Amino acid sequence: MVKVGIVGCSGYTAIEAIKLLLRHPYAEIVAATSRQADGNSLIDMHPQFSHRTQLMVEDLSPRQVAERCEVAFCCLPHGASAPIVVELLAGGCKVIDLSADYRLSTPALYEKWYGDHHPDPGRLGQVPYGLPELFADAIRSAHLVANPGCYPTSAILPLAPLLKEQIIESSGIVIDSKSGVSGAGRTPKLSNLYSEVNESLAAYSVGNHRHQPEIVDICSRFSGITPELVFTPHLTPMDRGIFSTIYVKPKSHVSANQVRECLSTFYDHSPFVRVVSHLPATKHVSHTNFCDITVRENNGWIIVLSVLDNLIKGASGAAVQCMNLMFDHDQKLGLL
Amino acid sequence: MVKVGIVGCSGYTAIEAIKLLLRHPYAEIVAATSRQADGNSLIDMHPQFSHRTQLMVEDLSPRQVAERCEVAFCCLPHGASAPIVVELLAGGCKVIDLSADYRLSTPALYEKWYGDHHPDPGRLGQVPYGLPELFADAIRSAHLVANPGCYPTSAILPLAPLLKEQIIESSGIVIDSKSGVSGAGRTPKLSNLYSEVNESLAAYSVGNHRHQPEIVDICSRFSGITPELVFTPHLTPMDRGIFSTIYVKPKSHVSANQVRECLSTFYDHSPFVRVVSHLPATKHVSHTNFCDITVRENNGWIIVLSVLDNLIKGASGAAVQCMNLMFDHDQKLGLL
Amino acid sequence: MVKVGIVGCSGYTAIEAIKLLLRHPYAEIVAATSRQADGNSLIDMHPQFSHRTQLMVEDLSPRQVAERCEVAFCCLPHGASAPIVVELLAGGCKVIDLSADYRLSTPALYEKWYGDHHPDPGRLGQVPYGLPELFADAIRSAHLVANPGCYPTSAILPLAPLLKEQIIESSGIVIDSKSGVSGAGRTPKLSNLYSEVNESLAAYSVGNHRHQPEIVDICSRFSGITPELVFTPHLTPMDRGIFSTIYVKPKSHVSANQVRECLSTFYDHSPFVRVVSHLPATKHVSHTNFCDITVRENNGWIIVLSVLDNLIKGASGAAVQCMNLMFDHDQKLGLL
Amino acid sequence: MVKVGIVGCSGYTAIEAIKLLLRHPYAEIVAATSRQADGNSLIDMHPQFSHRTQLMVEDLSPRQVAERCEVAFCCLPHGASAPIVVELLAGGCKVIDLSADYRLSTPALYEKWYGDHHPDPGRLGQVPYGLPELFADAIRSAHLVANPGCYPTSAILPLAPLLKEQIIESSGIVIDSKSGVSGAGRTPKLSNLYSEVNESLAAYSVGNHRHQPEIVDICSRFSGITPELVFTPHLTPMDRGIFSTIYVKPKSHVSANQVRECLSTFYDHSPFVRVVSHLPATKHVSHTNFCDITVRENNGWIIVLSVLDNLIKGASGAAVQCMNLMFDHDQKLGLL
Repeated sequence: MVKVGIVGCSGYTAIEAIKLLLRHPYAEIVAATSRQADGNSLIDMHPQFSHRTQLMVEDLSPRQVAERCEVAFCCLPHGASAPIVVELLAGGCKVIDLSADYRLSTPALYEKWYGDHHPDPGRLGQVPYGLPELFADAIRSAHLVANPGCYPTSAILPLAPLLKEQIIESSGIVIDSKSGVSGAGRTPKLSNLYSEVNESLAAYSVGNHRHQPEIVDICSRFSGITPELVFTPHLTPMDRGIFSTIYVKPKSHVSANQVRECLSTFYDHSPFVRVVSHLPATKHVSHTNFCDITVRENNGWIIVLSVLDNLIKGASGAAVQCMNLMFDHDQKLGLL
Repeated sequence: MVKVGIVGCSGYTAIEAIKLLLRHPYAEIVAATSRQADGNSLIDMHPQFSHRTQLMVEDLSPRQVAERCEVAFCCLPHGASAPIVVELLAGGCKVIDLSADYRLSTPALYEKWYGDHHPDPGRLGQVPYGLPELFADAIRSAHLVANPGCYPTSAILPLAPLLKEQIIESSGIVIDSKSGVSGAGRTPKLSNLYSEVNESLAAYSVGNHRHQPEIVDICSRFSGITPELVFTPHLTPMDRGIFSTIYVKPKSHVSANQVRECLSTFYDHSPFVRVVSHLPATKHVSHTNFCDITVRENNGWIIVLSVLDNLIKGASGAAVQCMNLMFDHDQKLGLL
Repeated sequence: MVKVGIVGCSGYTAIEAIKLLLRHPYAEIVAATSRQADGNSLIDMHPQFSHRTQLMVEDLSPRQVAERCEVAFCCLPHGASAPIVVELLAGGCKVIDLSADYRLSTPALYEKWYGDHHPDPGRLGQVPYGLPELFADAIRSAHLVANPGCYPTSAILPLAPLLKEQIIESSGIVIDSKSGVSGAGRTPKLSNLYSEVNESLAAYSVGNHRHQPEIVDICSRFSGITPELVFTPHLTPMDRGIFSTIYVKPKSHVSANQVRECLSTFYDHSPFVRVVSHLPATKHVSHTNFCDITVRENNGWIIVLSVLDNLIKGASGAAVQCMNLMFDHDQKLGLL
Repeated sequence: MVKVGIVGCSGYTAIEAIKLLLRHPYAEIVAATSRQADGNSLIDMHPQFSHRTQLMVEDLSPRQVAERCEVAFCCLPHGASAPIVVELLAGGCKVIDLSADYRLSTPALYEKWYGDHHPDPGRLGQVPYGLPELFADAIRSAHLVANPGCYPTSAILPLAPLLKEQIIESSGIVIDSKSGVSGAGRTPKLSNLYSEVNESLAAYSVGNHRHQPEIVDICSRFSGITPELVFTPHLTPMDRGIFSTIYVKPKSHVSANQVRECLSTFYDHSPFVRVVSHLPATKHVSHTNFCDITVRENNGWIIVLSVLDNLIKGASGAAVQCMNLMFDHDQKLGLL
């Protein structure tokens, strides 16, 4: 059994990670930490786990977590995560960081988009991005993995192979994404209240969302080609799910079928990316680790549609998939 | 009092028209027709109107409607509408047609997108498109108005003035639209069932939705410039609301501020188009006749965001606004 | 024009009151107060009112409000409201208090359920309860009206006449109520977050909700009979609407038809209570000031079903209805 | 591996059974039947199973199913199910019938509530009711199990032990239940359309729902005491979940704590019934096979609250739990 710690267990990605790990055949949660709820049981905090676990929520130091665990899922907010990650690693524990802290390649990029000096700049650029479909080898041997953002996963999975194969233009790409509300986190804010969000659809962070540079950076890291793109996120009245509608210009004489074929071939051995011919809906992948992708064309554009569950393939499912690789297990374990 | 008939009173646009007309100071509903429910009261069909009306639902011929009414709101499906419209007009009744039958400019265009010969080809190109913001004069003197589609309204209102003023490129336009489910109508279909649609987001008719040529045709009719665009509709788990995210390339040296200024100026005297600076949400305009528009920029693109209520400004509110003009009333009557 | 002030304009009841007053023929909002947003426009706070109003949000003292207004809608939380009401009244302004502060008949009852001494105990028992269907005469001549709670309205409207006519047993009454989320207010709390509430149904305050004594107290005040009842509120994933399922035992030989007849007769001249024969849904009354009631029987029980919109008939619509009476207008003005 | 057939694979209970069986360690789906979709793959019908199965949907006779399978999940509508069940059993196949056809104890009761002669009256009263918590021994040795209704499961699990232990009165019981929309099935009907159901709550079948006699019959079969009760179902805008609020009168001197204790003791060894102290929400059990129960008191009533997922513990999860018993496996297999 792999001994796992959940660092920061109050939010939705932590809840989802716990759900997945409770049914995982080779993982055992041995620590759950939170500053707010020290001394309560995990069930007090999340009653859906009644009769499933005896875990207590503790205010453990990173060193204490590292002593007890082989791997920590770090579910802290960006900025707060990196200093803890440093200590967890120093304590000898592997880390899957679900924050954004180690995703970007350079301190300069981090500083530009997160507005602060990076607390651990030396590691940036060394840490594999936790998309097993693109970076499996690096993940297998890593001590620290930067778990991808939910929107970026939905965009990078379709775009990265198309850029690498150079069958689409690298500029003029439009990514119009729609997300369920759980992606906004579990901290009470007016903008996340039921009566604000329900029966409403809205765009946010138009022109300045931090997932835009993440998509560019990782596509570039994988394909060697830096795309020029625009990304617009929208909030949709549903719990979970991301739908990305991606408009790209094909290189001349490339058809939608060739684009689909390229993706099919690329993901032939990836158990969680399904290149399908029907139009996908987020419901098809809800509560699963799948990303479904399809391709259409319209008036000279290629339209790539991709769906995933933002809490699973877009967060905790991807983390478990990485953990499986890091401990030499089949990447599907606990995820089907 | 203007005597109004509702032809085809079972669907959502009819329900919404009835709601608006019941509170309208100078309109009186004197006929409601349906083939299915002849002899029942309107309340039997729509219990929300209890104690509000004594109207019966009748299976009237168009001539009978025309005898009783000064204007008919024709709420029939496309294809079924035109033959009825012909008879209503012959009977001396004005008509606001909420179907798509008279929206396109030519029989050839209709035939290409609706797959059938148009039943009344001679009128195509003569019938004003019911957007008072663009075609008020023609509407005022019309006997027949083609009420706009919901998606097209959300796209044409922002695009038409920008094309006319030539401050955006007319090609490479991406319109990514999201709609509530009431836009799909009230006929029971698997794809509209609660448990299919709820907690899900999906694109549909990708590359072949009939509102794409409608947007092109009307923009061209108004501005003299034919845009080259791609339009993708999505179904969102909410009752009502359309959110269109429109990506355009500005002519060189044109900024987002200039685009916003252009729209502000153009709509300065339009009571129902609000060019705002905040990011709009469909909830801001839900149950109203407003269309809210704002402008942002990102990486060389201008992003125009527009929201409206698909059943009001996108259907029955626009129809009432047209009726007000056709009977020489203030276009705002009954709509604020 | 009646000059109206909105005291505490940030929450849902205030928003709804503003919507209703903006279309009211004889009311004009002349003040909107809030401690948080002093100096901003009302549109900054609530963008849905763009182009509808020039009002500023001000941090006015009650005296300042009283100088400017003929009537104030006091939309403050319970406990905070009474001291402000006292000053508003002293300033010569009429007040409709949407909090719970003046609803109960005695200081002792208030103290028991709200855990505090009442700040203005002398007025308790003197203030009419703002249900025009039961207390119109007292409301007409009142300077202060205690606007009813949303759940109590849904329960008192059906129960009070039945108790008064003595056709049901006064004990053993079960009131099972289901509410939309807007009833929980607009203050960010974990329990009101979209992702907590959506796709979930839960009971809350079981056995200790403050609306239980309110229902008992007002039924008793109206009918002279003190019912013995149990009330259970539930939170439902929708914006608005209350559905109350009320189980009562009829006096012997009383049928469901007689119960329905009793209610029909009692509400014959009440424009906003509709005693109907079909099964009601909250959607039938959504965005209206109606309360729909129907009656069924099952196994010796009479089941009375009542629906209303918690923000309109359950809050701000009732307040406007009271205002109409207090200023000698038709109670329907601005509400149809 | 147990070879399983899904008879009638188009609806929500079938979809959910397939999901559970695809991850079940000792079950393999070897047949899926439907009259509508013969010759298509299961993926054509349900795209969420892409890459998960190669199964074809076939129009097999019951004999053909019986030849291929050890057990059939019969997911047909009531009335249509029994004749197929008879043939499946004759072919030597075990059957779990998810319809209502074999739930009631006598042909007379069936005829009264379903309006038809029972097609297989001789078996009624012999077939165990598929609640392993109450009837595990009978289920283990059965060839045919009548899978419980969703509402009845939520009511019988709390009521049956309390009646048997005689700590509550057997009369005057009120069961007020609220269900998600998937319980209404997947056949397109106006009443199940998104725009009818969303943002609305309604009661239905008040006083005449067929689950009322089912609750009475099974409680009586288990406890020897026939309760006198009233049951009211409500439709709630969510996909899944049942919440039952049950009002009972305790025998004298029995407290809420004693009621909770009675249930805790009774379900101590039942892995899927959790007697908890917090107030449950349907979300706590969504997508699980748990039924959570808690107890409160109010004004002389004991209020028992129970929640479950109508498609899992209320349908297909219970069926898998029964299958596990019928094939001598741990009842938890594939369900945690």
